[in-house]
Amino acid sequence: MNFMNSSLVFFGAGKSKICAGCTVALETLATLLAEPGDVFLIPAPYYSSFVDDINERAGVLALGVPCDETLSRDAFEQAYERVTGEGKRVRAVLFSSPNNPIGTVYKEEAIRSLLDFAMEHDLDVISDEIYAQTVFDPEAHFVSTMRLVPDAYRHRVHVTSSFAKDFVLSGFRTGMCFSFNPDIIQGFASITYYSSVSSHTQSLLTALLKEPELGEIMELSRKRLGKAYRIFSRGLAEMGIPMMKAQAGIFVMADLSEYMEKQEFSAEQVLWDKIYNELMLNISPGGLFGCERPGWFRACYAFDEDTVEEACRRLQMLKK
Amino acid sequence: MNFMNSSLVFFGAGKSKICAGCTVALETLATLLAEPGDVFLIPAPYYSSFVDDINERAGVLALGVPCDETLSRDAFEQAYERVTGEGKRVRAVLFSSPNNPIGTVYKEEAIRSLLDFAMEHDLDVISDEIYAQTVFDPEAHFVSTMRLVPDAYRHRVHVTSSFAKDFVLSGFRTGMCFSFNPDIIQGFASITYYSSVSSHTQSLLTALLKEPELGEIMELSRKRLGKAYRIFSRGLAEMGIPMMKAQAGIFVMADLSEYMEKQEFSAEQVLWDKIYNELMLNISPGGLFGCERPGWFRACYAFDEDTVEEACRRLQMLKK
Repeated sequence: MNFMNSSLVFFGAGKSKICAGCTVALETLATLLAEPGDVFLIPAPYYSSFVDDINERAGVLALGVPCDETLSRDAFEQAYERVTGEGKRVRAVLFSSPNNPIGTVYKEEAIRSLLDFAMEHDLDVISDEIYAQTVFDPEAHFVSTMRLVPDAYRHRVHVTSSFAKDFVLSGFRTGMCFSFNPDIIQGFASITYYSSVSSHTQSLLTALLKEPELGEIMELSRKRLGKAYRIFSRGLAEMGIPMMKAQAGIFVMADLSEYMEKQEFSAEQVLWDKIYNELMLNISPGGLFGCERPGWFRACYAFDEDTVEEACRRLQMLKK
Repeated sequence: MNFMNSSLVFFGAGKSKICAGCTVALETLATLLAEPGDVFLIPAPYYSSFVDDINERAGVLALGVPCDETLSRDAFEQAYERVTGEGKRVRAVLFSSPNNPIGTVYKEEAIRSLLDFAMEHDLDVISDEIYAQTVFDPEAHFVSTMRLVPDAYRHRVHVTSSFAKDFVLSGFRTGMCFSFNPDIIQGFASITYYSSVSSHTQSLLTALLKEPELGEIMELSRKRLGKAYRIFSRGLAEMGIPMMKAQAGIFVMADLSEYMEKQEFSAEQVLWDKIYNELMLNISPGGLFGCERPGWFRACYAFDEDTVEEACRRLQMLKK
């Protein structure tokens, strides 16, 4: 994966495993690292399915840690105190880098702060880098968590990814785990017998990664993402809708609270219903992602220009 | 699947689910039907991996029921008494039809006998029909278990299959479960989220099933299998090696006990080692398949004629 060299460390043989999607990679890590009832801390807002991915089979509990893009330690320390005070064990920190839903590309200092916290408390770190190739903001600089961890702690950090987002191949169900921990790699080899990827699909994806034009294609993809983001954020700005600045991914968080009758999470559902059924736009209420304050919604802008412009026109109808 | 009509009942929408291989289908059925510690009865000799498929994650225990190809009830009743006498619960009967490793195509009476037993004791039946398209003996008539079960009991019978054997696509990791039980189908839909099949592979397999020449190709495949079987069984006969008559599948059970120093299962391993390392043939000792008597070995003859003849030549070297 030459085009990834700028961001990822080199993973040789025996340091990665594939399985039927990133969901499985996260579920497998939860199974291998924790006992049912253990807790993973996750910076909030977080990808809502993280909660199910680690809980449904592995029984691990997700706890959102409200924090900004600096991932400062105070919030994590407080969450850690709370969990251990309840007699539960914190086993790992799980975060998406770049972040879904807020689209942040974490700065090195932010990731180092999280790593310091994890090392201090003897926690593993799962860095889900499924959006690593979608960074469209020229000012953002993505660095894999694996590059920032001190060598002595490298076996405690596990990176997951997939072809679903970077390559827009979500149906291909091909996820990966990269780890320098041989026990984790061996555990994957055993468990993912139940979620193997077809050799037919592996063959196509191998050819894709060897394609000389891939770098240019990915660059084009990022340019288009950036353009769609600019159209959509301009549309929101024209309506006076506050939003979080995104630098990567396919989503933006927009504050639609002024269109809610009450500043309560139940009102998010009412507004969602109106937007879905009247405007026929499908955006997701922030309560799903562990937002602290009601009124945030996650919108996907990864469409062609006409579709994004049409979405902006429809959102204008909220003003009536 | 027109070419399958002669043997399988018609499965409409909502009566089948796919997952990443027949292993997963069996593991999922074990998870859905049983609690850890429950027992599935399996006619022996059986496919050795059945034991792991139902046990590793679902915790279900496999008990081999020594019986011949008539699947007569006595042996099953005895096994049932034994298990319940130990305070355990028998939850299902699992069998491969056609049978692996012995290559038998069960007669209707045999399957009906097994169904009677299951209905009498309120057990589910899992009929693994992964070799349904490999029947090369013109005298054999394969019938899906689903066709023989009375309508009132049809929701208790579940058929599994895969593209791995019939279509020689083991790397494609695409298994299926057919069931008239809506709870089973819904359970599959939930659990197999963790073992999805790539849409890329699904697309190719759909095209394969629609291919007008498929029937002829399968017929050719069966002819070649039959020819390889005849060459191999002639080779064994010339050596005076007893074997079970096969009618389907890709394996034959051969009695190599006369080449063992002792009539013990430990001696199978010694002979296996000799055959593997000196003759460089990989055949499997019967102990793995729950054979009652030591000395049986499972050999795969699904190769081109030259390879099968070479295997016969090498086996002759045992006579020295």
